[in-house]
This record gives sequence, C-alpha cells and structure tokens, in this order.
Amino acid sequence: MVVTCVLGIDPGLANTGYGVVARRGARVVARDGGVIETRKGLALEQRLAILYAEVDELLQRHDPDAVALEDLFFGANARSAFAVGQARGVVLLAAGRRGIPCSSYTPQQVKLAVCGTGRAAKDQVARMVCAVLGLPDDPLPDHATDALAVGVCHVNHAPLAQVMAGAR
Amino acid sequence: MVVTCVLGIDPGLANTGYGVVARRGARVVARDGGVIETRKGLALEQRLAILYAEVDELLQRHDPDAVALEDLFFGANARSAFAVGQARGVVLLAAGRRGIPCSSYTPQQVKLAVCGTGRAAKDQVARMVCAVLGLPDDPLPDHATDALAVGVCHVNHAPLAQVMAGAR
Repeated sequence: MVVTCVLGIDPGLANTGYGVVARRGARVVARDGGVIETRKGLALEQRLAILYAEVDELLQRHDPDAVALEDLFFGANARSAFAVGQARGVVLLAAGRRGIPCSSYTPQQVKLAVCGTGRAAKDQVARMVCAVLGLPDDPLPDHATDALAVGVCHVNHAPLAQVMAGAR
Repeated sequence: MVVTCVLGIDPGLANTGYGVVARRGARVVARDGGVIETRKGLALEQRLAILYAEVDELLQRHDPDAVALEDLFFGANARSAFAVGQARGVVLLAAGRRGIPCSSYTPQQVKLAVCGTGRAAKDQVARMVCAVLGLPDDPLPDHATDALAVGVCHVNHAPLAQVMAGAR
C-alpha cells in the first residue's frame, strides 16, 4: 500500500512549527511534531542557519514525499511578512536542495480541509487535527498543531488533486 | 594595509543584484558585480536553490569579510515583502553557514552614505557609485548598481562605526 509522508511547516523566525503526517490508504497518522526555536539574541544569519540545520535533519530522518507550508495570511503587515518570508525561504531551500516538492496553502485552505469551513476557529482546528490523527486532545504547542494541520491538508488535498489531474 | 571586502546584495526572487566592493585605506574599488536571475517557470524551492548556489559560489570566490543587504523599503506591500524575504533569507543563510557577518541598511541609509542625502534619486545614486568606484558611467544593470551601492555604504559606514565603538 502506498504511504504518502508529508512534512507540514508553520514557518517563523523565533518559532517554526513542524508536523510529519503519513497517509496509508484512508488512515492518516502523525509521526512527529514539535517546534524549532531560535534565540532572539543571535544574529539573524545564525538563527536562519540553525533553522536550516534542524529542518534539514527532519527531512533526512523522515524522508517525506512533500513539504507543505502555510502561505501568507491575508492582512499580514509588510514587516512581519518580511520576517516570516526569510524563515520560509530557508525551509523551502532545505527541501529544494533535496529535490522534495513544496506546496503552499493559505490558512483558509487549511481550515477548509481540516474542518470543512475556511472560517473555523483556531481551537476547532486543533481539536479536529487531534481527532483525525488519533492524538490526545491538544498535546502539542500551537505552532506544532498548525504544522500538523497543514500536513493533514496536504495529504487530504493531494489525492483529490491527482484524481482531478487524471480526469482532465 | 588592511583590506575590507564586502559583498553587497540587492535581494529578489527573479533578480538578485550583487556587487563586491573592497576598501584599501581611503580607496574603494569594485571587484565584481552582476545579477543572479532565476526563471519564473521553475518551482519556488528550485529557484531558491539556484540563488543559494550562486551566492555561495560568490562567497567562496571572493571570501568577503561581511555581507551587506538592503533592508525592506518603507511602503512595501506584504505580498512583495514576503517574496523578497524568501530570497533574502536564502542569502543570509549562505553567509551564516560560512560564519560571515551580515548587515542591513535601509534604502535611505544607502542613499545618505553614497550621495550625502537620504532623498537622492536613483540615477544620482548610480552616478555616484560609478564615480566612487572609478567605473565608466552606468555600465551595469540596475540591480547590480544597487548592490554595489549597499557595498559602498557598508565600507564607508563600518570604519566610522568602529571608531565610535572604540570611543565608548
């Protein structure tokens, strides 16, 4: 049976959430999840180097078929978009250098895929992620849950996208 | 005599300008300059991987003491800040992994350092960069000239910053 494994990422300079989600037929399970932190006192280039090394280690350990990332949320300001963009570029690079394809999903797409509505509240998404993955309720930090949600969005979205591509 | 060498970068996903500027006493010269381009048709992670490889090659070839980058310009919108941020993160990472310190300058700081006013026009900055570096007028693409300007800003700024740090 084909197993699809995806590394979901909620990128940020201080905190990058990650969640490894695998789909085996109809079953979706979590294989890993957590937060990569970088200290504020370090130079920006050093913080990005730490983030890169940690993400690269995750890619090596789990060998995912894809990386799924949160896209910019509507209403973000330029300064925070710039900071998140820098962290996100480093994550994309880690995947790109290993030849692993990346997909982006807006927060609305993630909510729709996980909860059936693009307007779901944050705690509703967290509860659904735990339910889908068979995890105890809310065991992880917010950023990790967000990353798992992007991973669930991708494994639920990808088969449909393949069917639709095949039907064209 | 101490030679300070700096790689100036004007980051962007499609076009990243670069300029290598060296200071030997009172004299400032250009050692290299150009534009790294990535094709629109490629996946984002592949474009960032190309940018990283090219910047890393420049760092290896010129072995600069520092990398100087343009900061976000005031008035940028979130979407373009996000895109530029991703490219900038990759450049910072290349420097960070080699232990080369990075500095950021706003467009106003660059104009002030090169032309004596933060409100200088684009063509005035280009003319001054060429004059300072002893280059024929406007020999390079805009992005390369912008990168050289950041490099000139850094080599002119750094000695003063050191004097001021020593005086404290």
